[in-house]
Amino acid sequence: MTTQTAKRQLTPVSFTQVTLDDPFWAPRQEINRRISIPHMYQMLVDTGRIGAFDLNFERPTPSPIVLIFGDSDPAKWLEAACYSLITHPDPELAALVDQVADKIISAQQPDGYLNTHFTVTQPDMRWKNLRDWHEMYCAGHLMEAAVAHFQATGNPKLLNALARYADHIDREFGPNPGQRRGYCGHPEIELALVRLYHATGERRYLELSKYMVEERGQSNPHYYDVEAIARGEDPRKFWAKTYEYCQAHKPIREQDKVVGHAVRAMYLMAGVADLAHEYDDPTLLAACERLWDNLVHQRMYLTGGIGPSRHNEGFTFDYDLPDETAYAETCAAIALVMWNHRLLQFAGDGKYADIIEQTLYNGFISGVSLAGDSFFYVNPLASTGSHHRTPWFECPCCPPNVGRILASLGNYLYSTGDAALWVHFYAQNRANVTVDGKPVQVRLTSNYPWEGAVHLALTLDAPQRFALKLRIPGWCDAWAVKVNGAPVDTATTDHGYITIDRIWQSGDVVTLDLTMPVQAIYAHPNVRQLQGRLALQRGPIVYCMEGVDNSGIGLERIALDPAQVPAFSVDYQPDLLGGVAVLRGQGRAITDDGWNSHILYRRNHPSSVAPVDVVAIPYATWDNRAPGEMRVWFRAA
Amino acid sequence: MTTQTAKRQLTPVSFTQVTLDDPFWAPRQEINRRISIPHMYQMLVDTGRIGAFDLNFERPTPSPIVLIFGDSDPAKWLEAACYSLITHPDPELAALVDQVADKIISAQQPDGYLNTHFTVTQPDMRWKNLRDWHEMYCAGHLMEAAVAHFQATGNPKLLNALARYADHIDREFGPNPGQRRGYCGHPEIELALVRLYHATGERRYLELSKYMVEERGQSNPHYYDVEAIARGEDPRKFWAKTYEYCQAHKPIREQDKVVGHAVRAMYLMAGVADLAHEYDDPTLLAACERLWDNLVHQRMYLTGGIGPSRHNEGFTFDYDLPDETAYAETCAAIALVMWNHRLLQFAGDGKYADIIEQTLYNGFISGVSLAGDSFFYVNPLASTGSHHRTPWFECPCCPPNVGRILASLGNYLYSTGDAALWVHFYAQNRANVTVDGKPVQVRLTSNYPWEGAVHLALTLDAPQRFALKLRIPGWCDAWAVKVNGAPVDTATTDHGYITIDRIWQSGDVVTLDLTMPVQAIYAHPNVRQLQGRLALQRGPIVYCMEGVDNSGIGLERIALDPAQVPAFSVDYQPDLLGGVAVLRGQGRAITDDGWNSHILYRRNHPSSVAPVDVVAIPYATWDNRAPGEMRVWFRAA
Repeated sequence: MTTQTAKRQLTPVSFTQVTLDDPFWAPRQEINRRISIPHMYQMLVDTGRIGAFDLNFERPTPSPIVLIFGDSDPAKWLEAACYSLITHPDPELAALVDQVADKIISAQQPDGYLNTHFTVTQPDMRWKNLRDWHEMYCAGHLMEAAVAHFQATGNPKLLNALARYADHIDREFGPNPGQRRGYCGHPEIELALVRLYHATGERRYLELSKYMVEERGQSNPHYYDVEAIARGEDPRKFWAKTYEYCQAHKPIREQDKVVGHAVRAMYLMAGVADLAHEYDDPTLLAACERLWDNLVHQRMYLTGGIGPSRHNEGFTFDYDLPDETAYAETCAAIALVMWNHRLLQFAGDGKYADIIEQTLYNGFISGVSLAGDSFFYVNPLASTGSHHRTPWFECPCCPPNVGRILASLGNYLYSTGDAALWVHFYAQNRANVTVDGKPVQVRLTSNYPWEGAVHLALTLDAPQRFALKLRIPGWCDAWAVKVNGAPVDTATTDHGYITIDRIWQSGDVVTLDLTMPVQAIYAHPNVRQLQGRLALQRGPIVYCMEGVDNSGIGLERIALDPAQVPAFSVDYQPDLLGGVAVLRGQGRAITDDGWNSHILYRRNHPSSVAPVDVVAIPYATWDNRAPGEMRVWFRAA
Repeated sequence: MTTQTAKRQLTPVSFTQVTLDDPFWAPRQEINRRISIPHMYQMLVDTGRIGAFDLNFERPTPSPIVLIFGDSDPAKWLEAACYSLITHPDPELAALVDQVADKIISAQQPDGYLNTHFTVTQPDMRWKNLRDWHEMYCAGHLMEAAVAHFQATGNPKLLNALARYADHIDREFGPNPGQRRGYCGHPEIELALVRLYHATGERRYLELSKYMVEERGQSNPHYYDVEAIARGEDPRKFWAKTYEYCQAHKPIREQDKVVGHAVRAMYLMAGVADLAHEYDDPTLLAACERLWDNLVHQRMYLTGGIGPSRHNEGFTFDYDLPDETAYAETCAAIALVMWNHRLLQFAGDGKYADIIEQTLYNGFISGVSLAGDSFFYVNPLASTGSHHRTPWFECPCCPPNVGRILASLGNYLYSTGDAALWVHFYAQNRANVTVDGKPVQVRLTSNYPWEGAVHLALTLDAPQRFALKLRIPGWCDAWAVKVNGAPVDTATTDHGYITIDRIWQSGDVVTLDLTMPVQAIYAHPNVRQLQGRLALQRGPIVYCMEGVDNSGIGLERIALDPAQVPAFSVDYQPDLLGGVAVLRGQGRAITDDGWNSHILYRRNHPSSVAPVDVVAIPYATWDNRAPGEMRVWFRAA
């Protein structure tokens, strides 16, 4: 009897219409294009990931799982390269992309199947272990690559190949007689099939995605039990013990905690959000909101990192947020952004944009070095100095994932709705958007995220009435808005946005001034690891301290006085770490007084403390200088 | 040109001469005898560990390593049972011990070899992988069992069998032509061979032990490389990466950090200490002292637990002492006691007795439940409530190790020297010792460790002059001594002992009053995990808080004021946890004010605090009631 709708009211503006020229993202995008994408290609070649599509390799059986799902890495690279081509045409890269696309197509089997590992090494094991072997995950990433390739080149050859593969999967799996009721242990294909549906117009792909989401976690019997028994295995001997690991422990509509492998959970929920919209299904949207509440209010790091545990690359229990051992995989931050971007479009609730911003500026972009040629897989919130980015990984899922998000980062800035233009972020950019079918050019200038002053100029063909929706970030307590120099009363926000509804003239200028003080952040009393602690944040930027700036003492010796934090100075340093605002202030540090190397514990005499100057830098930029300690959360004292 | 000696000046009084009737250990020994030893036997039978000596089993190859070294577990059980028989004759247990001894003997091969796994499952792999497969480790534990069996029964059959096995090993391994230069990846046989030498008088066993210690870590070439290559393996692919894991990265005399697997390190060093004495070798004693300094001053938990990391079951780096993830294996605490007991005998330096006491009363005895039928393998210093003792383990090394130490605990109380009687601990007991060849009966009464008042009555055949050496524990700052009611000036200690040198008469009474306040303990500023924290200790007992006593709040919410700690009350509760002194006081706890389940982080508003009554119990007794949180180190505020 619900009357709630689950259709999206907003439509994101594509990155193809947005050109960033801000101090934070534009250099990252440039490095991504010039350094990271070529670097990743070379690594994929060197590790045989590209050559695998020649179907001419030897592998032991059983093979390491990272080899089994190796097709997904070139797929993500191809997606990144295609996005880059759209914004920065490049004949050389275009030729390479064409070559890789042809290679992928050449590996397709007559029945449409397209997976190098199972074609070459274990043809008899095709589709025999959906739980563990990532076949549909690889298919999904290839589908996303195909959609991007068609978008970039207009050439449908790869799209057609992946449609044939989707047809194959659609014949094999489903609820009908003669089909197996399977779905992938690593979700991804669900959201990919929705993209494939939009790119091809073939509604069967949407239906297949819906089937996969709804079959997931059904248990009479459970498909992963069935296929394990068919392999001669005891399903109870699943290493992860329960199907929570792959979010298949119960149907999605019955899940109320975000569990298991973090990337899997987020990709799945992105697909669920897509289907909620496509089928106008409030029960799927409700599942999203329920799991979002649990994730954001009980299981997310301040950086937007998610999944504290290395063991399952994922979630543990509510309020368990260790800092030094945080897993917080880069791919999980990416998938968190993808899911929230989908949720944001339903009703324009700024709480989703808050998560996107918090994650992009911190726990996502920490994943790549400023030089663009080394990466974090794991993004802890404290380090003894032994954690460093590396050029590549045995499981290289993160680098090309960073690549595709950076290349399409413009996706996240704007949405349009009925008589509405939504501005989610304030990174400097030029955008060509369409509101109610009419073109609007936006020139947004700012020094965001280092300063909160935003200047927004509109160019229209003709005067046009629409609501300009400006996001007031969750971190912001005070702001001022002017239109053409005249103050506007925007004291109240609606779900995180202020609205200026008027007939806009070409040349209208809106200024938004977001007050951006240094803030002390505290964690819920149930987060045992963070009690008596504070973190530093300014605007969307979470800060950390590094040994190199705070030399001579261990960072855990430093305590910060909450009352002093607002007095920390903000010092923009153009030559440091690509240009960052550092924070400077005073803390108190435990001294060596009375201690020596022959005393580990002492009785009744607490350590003495002394004032110490401290310097904090943006978390995302750590480990770009001399290796050393890093810490986000400090003792408050 | 050194003139230092490395001969032991002290001789420990055997547990066979000491009967504990104190409130702490006597009940533990009783439970060990009545519950743990039968329980462990049953578990060993049920898991096939005893039956293995029938040489009639099937195992896959490669077998799990815990099966490969399965002989060591019955060996330790047999050692425990034999010690128990010595102090508590028991025909039923004696019959069982005889039966197990016969079973072990029956598995011996004509050439003396005695290992069930390699005899039955992989006869071709005998002695092919000393690095990983624990063959000599098992041999060592069997030798220790054989020595105990001979001591308990006077029957030399098992001792003879193990001597034959030692002869076999002595033929196979050594520095002579035709011998292989091997030694075990898991030290243990080194100390066992010294015991076997003393039990049999056969000096070759001592020489073999010396060879093994001195060959260890030699690298021209390294034996573990040689044997790996002989197996067709690449030695660089050793999972632990370096031979630090088994303390074979360099010769012992060149080692200056305690590294690798903690139990291996401690067993090795116990053997090294034995050899220092046997060969009067100051260079070996210097190695002990060097590694002891590193261990005790940079790498030991307050509880006497050692080895923070699960990964290598061992050491990481200086000052790395995480509490919740502490590994601190029970066997490592045991081996730490064994090593320090050996070091204590060289010159009677109380610093070694301090470590023994700290470990026995805390991180050792935490390893077994009060009921005696479940065990900790891992002894963390904080728990979210998910860590519990279990009746058995896939690798059951710890339970019988606890059993043999408890059954022989009297070993640690006294030593004798030339005209000297050393009292190391003050647990209530009766002892028959011999000083300069003459019998001295000691009756020590106390309520230690709950009270510091000690009463010591001597019974002698005739007046006798000797120095009574009373240990002043490292935790004690104030004490008073009387002889026959008259105060004695004992303000100064020599290496932790006071000396009363006089002609003792039968009936003389010495009283020692150790002041035992509640103390706050602080960790070195380099221990990053413990900055701004304190722990509670009274006497030798390290305290913790458990959820069950401090209900309704998370333990990490509690902060303790250092100034309040001395005012904590001490409340002996005879009906709690077998009778313990609990500490009661007031702390401050973070409240939920202003927080709810929809706020994970908040800006600029620290959590509020409120006074809270707290109760602390002895660390070793946690997890004996309702499961829940536990914590040793508290925020100081």
